[in-house]
Amino acid sequence: MARYKLTIAYDGTHFHGWQRQEPPGEEPLRTVQGVVEEAVRMRVRQPLNVVGASRTDAGVHALGQVAHFSAESPIPLERMGRAINSRLPDDVEIRSIEEVPETFDAISDARSKRYRYRLHVAKLRPLFSRHVTSYVLFTLDPDRMNAAAKRIEGTHDFGGFATAGHGRESTVRTVKQCMVIPADPDELHVVVVGDGFLWNMVRIIVGTLVDVGRGLFEVERIDEILKSADRSLAGTTAEPQGLCLEEISYTDHWPTVDPPGTGLIR
Amino acid sequence: MARYKLTIAYDGTHFHGWQRQEPPGEEPLRTVQGVVEEAVRMRVRQPLNVVGASRTDAGVHALGQVAHFSAESPIPLERMGRAINSRLPDDVEIRSIEEVPETFDAISDARSKRYRYRLHVAKLRPLFSRHVTSYVLFTLDPDRMNAAAKRIEGTHDFGGFATAGHGRESTVRTVKQCMVIPADPDELHVVVVGDGFLWNMVRIIVGTLVDVGRGLFEVERIDEILKSADRSLAGTTAEPQGLCLEEISYTDHWPTVDPPGTGLIR
Repeated sequence: MARYKLTIAYDGTHFHGWQRQEPPGEEPLRTVQGVVEEAVRMRVRQPLNVVGASRTDAGVHALGQVAHFSAESPIPLERMGRAINSRLPDDVEIRSIEEVPETFDAISDARSKRYRYRLHVAKLRPLFSRHVTSYVLFTLDPDRMNAAAKRIEGTHDFGGFATAGHGRESTVRTVKQCMVIPADPDELHVVVVGDGFLWNMVRIIVGTLVDVGRGLFEVERIDEILKSADRSLAGTTAEPQGLCLEEISYTDHWPTVDPPGTGLIR
Repeated sequence: MARYKLTIAYDGTHFHGWQRQEPPGEEPLRTVQGVVEEAVRMRVRQPLNVVGASRTDAGVHALGQVAHFSAESPIPLERMGRAINSRLPDDVEIRSIEEVPETFDAISDARSKRYRYRLHVAKLRPLFSRHVTSYVLFTLDPDRMNAAAKRIEGTHDFGGFATAGHGRESTVRTVKQCMVIPADPDELHVVVVGDGFLWNMVRIIVGTLVDVGRGLFEVERIDEILKSADRSLAGTTAEPQGLCLEEISYTDHWPTVDPPGTGLIR
């Protein structure tokens, strides 16, 4: 019996999120977990569960979802990734597969995660990127948004930036990086790196930053939301399709990105 | 009665091409022309035809398709684009609308066009770009491809690079630019600018350049195909979804692109 770690990318457009959903007496919904489990089972020919680190919602994408499973595989490791991929539909793919110690747990061993949210800010709505961006018709001020984003960084009670109902004990989390990046030609990206995320936390942060960028909220509003942990003070929950889970780190290294303009000229 | 020139962008994935198709006794197929005509008619409230410059095939995309129509519009020009867009589905949009002389003809006045073909060259198949690229698993040599592309430029009989059957009298065309551009991280783009294109001409040029890039054809093969006008000497027709009609010029200005590395540092 060996344990495997999968890194998985998917276009979430046509999935009902990551987590398997089998309503009693009905057809199972199409989920990433369901599709990946089926492909892995076909290859290793035994029952198993694929456990994912993040339960991404319907419409949310991933470049670096991580999952684990245990199996006695009849296929050598170097061929297994391709073998599973050949059984997957064209909107999900295994990016890499590794053998890991049998104690490895994709959920509880995850130390930090990076999400990116793509806003399409233009007079015309997005065309080719419509399934991976959220459209904002208003003019946004990225400097104001970045000033607000800076205030989100740190260890805080993020209860005001979460949808209640997932029953977590603590709503304290550490956000290592929250940054708004102008990305040409018509996009603003919000990058958020943290040690853990409450339900809808990134989408509510983004919705609130958009309201700051429009001038509806002052920058100081962030402090009020953090202090009060009052969800009703924050902005709306941004649409799912702009969000992408980019990377999950299993070490002390935070998967932050460099601010624009700091890189070397290539 | 005024004449209007539309510039139209569309994601061709879910269209049966540009041209209206109404098989007798069946539901009309979903085409870009059909969808745009319906939206324009709803707005100007009169019967009309929208005539497109290029009959793009099913799966082919456009950023700069051009079309004309004549109507007595109840809507001022400055509001018409938005009015039509609000009636269009999310995979097609009017980029601009102009009033033009009543003699303007989108087809016969077109002087030149630019197409771009996106090849995804990598070990893993494309995920988010799978509807706008064609996947090539083989290693390609862009220098060999560019040497072959250079030989396509000029005025030639392109009969060997065309699918027969559209009944054109002459198969002589001028290609002003044919260039292979490495585009990061996993793409090669083939840009072709010409005064007119035969049926499938860009896709057969691309299929042939891929075979040159793989080493299946020598660079000189291009000359043989041009000299003989023999379709059977050329490569396969590349898949439709990698192709995009980027620009149509109605002046003497060719819509060429700068070779990489020649631009100013920004």
